Amino acid sequence: MKDTQREPTHEGVIRAAQKIAAILPPTPLIPFEAQGRTIYAKADCLQPIGAFKIRGAWHRLTDLSDEERGRGVVAVSSGNHAQGIAWAARELGIEATIVMPEDAPHVKLERTKSLGAKVVTYDRMTENREAIAQGIASEKGATYAHAYGDPWVIEGQGSAGIEIAHQMLAQIDRPVSKIIACCGGGGLTAGLALACPDASVIPVEPEGWDDVCRSLETGEIQSVGENPPPTACDAIQTFKTFPINFAVMKAHCREWARVSEQEIREAQRFAFSHMRLVVEPGGAAALASVLSGRIEADDATAVMITGGNTDAASFAAVLNG
Amino acid sequence: MKDTQREPTHEGVIRAAQKIAAILPPTPLIPFEAQGRTIYAKADCLQPIGAFKIRGAWHRLTDLSDEERGRGVVAVSSGNHAQGIAWAARELGIEATIVMPEDAPHVKLERTKSLGAKVVTYDRMTENREAIAQGIASEKGATYAHAYGDPWVIEGQGSAGIEIAHQMLAQIDRPVSKIIACCGGGGLTAGLALACPDASVIPVEPEGWDDVCRSLETGEIQSVGENPPPTACDAIQTFKTFPINFAVMKAHCREWARVSEQEIREAQRFAFSHMRLVVEPGGAAALASVLSGRIEADDATAVMITGGNTDAASFAAVLNG
Repeated sequence: MKDTQREPTHEGVIRAAQKIAAILPPTPLIPFEAQGRTIYAKADCLQPIGAFKIRGAWHRLTDLSDEERGRGVVAVSSGNHAQGIAWAARELGIEATIVMPEDAPHVKLERTKSLGAKVVTYDRMTENREAIAQGIASEKGATYAHAYGDPWVIEGQGSAGIEIAHQMLAQIDRPVSKIIACCGGGGLTAGLALACPDASVIPVEPEGWDDVCRSLETGEIQSVGENPPPTACDAIQTFKTFPINFAVMKAHCREWARVSEQEIREAQRFAFSHMRLVVEPGGAAALASVLSGRIEADDATAVMITGGNTDAASFAAVLNG
Repeated sequence: MKDTQREPTHEGVIRAAQKIAAILPPTPLIPFEAQGRTIYAKADCLQPIGAFKIRGAWHRLTDLSDEERGRGVVAVSSGNHAQGIAWAARELGIEATIVMPEDAPHVKLERTKSLGAKVVTYDRMTENREAIAQGIASEKGATYAHAYGDPWVIEGQGSAGIEIAHQMLAQIDRPVSKIIACCGGGGLTAGLALACPDASVIPVEPEGWDDVCRSLETGEIQSVGENPPPTACDAIQTFKTFPINFAVMKAHCREWARVSEQEIREAQRFAFSHMRLVVEPGGAAALASVLSGRIEADDATAVMITGGNTDAASFAAVLNG
């Protein structure tokens, strides 16, 4: 049994980055103009599964023993971690079962299945997804790969920061100074902070789904408020970060932001017209914080574009909005 | 006065590729699944101007003398060459005048202006754009940079082939064997053929806008047929290739294809959902030839995605189609 409460480390991020570089070419760091300067978008929506989650999944599953691989893997996800785990499991010949909300975007459900995973759905409002997943894991002796509260997943997501650091040096000969990240449970934010300890790492959440902002503001882990509002950002619609993530974020993050649904849609339209990228709502939160001016960029700022898995009809509606 | 009828060469492509590598990071070569195998999309829609045309424009304008730069540059384009020339001219401090059809996509007209170029519009059906451009060029002593019938432009576009060759080796350890290209006047196709003489380079045109296919079939330069049908592919809506392009294509191309408007829209939707890329109709023709099975891919095939400059409303209509 792996120690899922061990601390994730910078060394772990480096090791994850090496494993990921061997199988996935770095996604591009694309310059764009905003706030009167050039800012850099890390286009992780161009990963084979359309999201950065492939990173943590690959680091997690490649570190399983042969015996653990034989017992399979279980995950809970609205769709991007699901596809990451399903992709990595397929590559490694591991059986994957994914617990997904029944209202997850259709495209994410279908793609997870098409990658060969078994999908079990649940009702986001009435059922406890963790309990369902833990139940399946105990029954099969399978490994439960949490979407963010897992040291391997955190380290794997951090590999994006290693790529950004290298690309920023190669493209503009400066060390990256700020990395702005879309934030759900804080797997990516914590990973980036471990990857780039000298950069400022800034989590951005949708208004009302701001458990990480609240936690950073109070110094203790907080849930989202009661009756959180609807959000299009299914990918970062999380109720509460985990201690393993928060410990890193609390030690590192000095700035954070909330963005509105309207600002997120504007960021999706900007990515469409200025970068020719398809970005899902939850993947556009960090970009929204820069375009809206909620976060001030400097001369070596990177913005994570974390995912692009959205239905054609939803994206058309955003474009027509 | 530069010799615009000199032959473009492999050495010229190499020199262009070196100049371009110094200012533009290579666009990614993105794997996708079709025809039961993995094929590679060269995502040149991710260039800063959203199209490969930045390549030829950069090679062309950087080779002008200081004196030539001082007299400015003139180009004719529906929008992507326009933006390439405008971008390169802005970087180099050259005055650019672009002759564009008045029915060019709004986004292309606006972006060309926003890059600082002077835009002169004409009626595609009744006015001779070449004459307008030549008139402006003679009046100012400016350099006329043709969109495809120019050796520098051909060599510059060929730099995409140099990148593909390197990336294919790095990613799958195989030399590229086929490169499928969206084809208007044949600047890109000729450039790729010069760049990768050992690969099969395959031009793809929209049905009815098939002057290059007709020319390759008859061995002599042909125009498109009378009353060509409407096409969404403004970027590759050309009546007739030039001798400088055809000479290279005739010597090199053994396969070519025409694709329907419906196949092009399906390719745009595929790029949206499987690659998270925004691709304009003319940028999706090569991809359409593979998805429709009109061209058979092999185990080291690259498909050029040449541009992503499309209006939100047009793209939403394609997604909803």
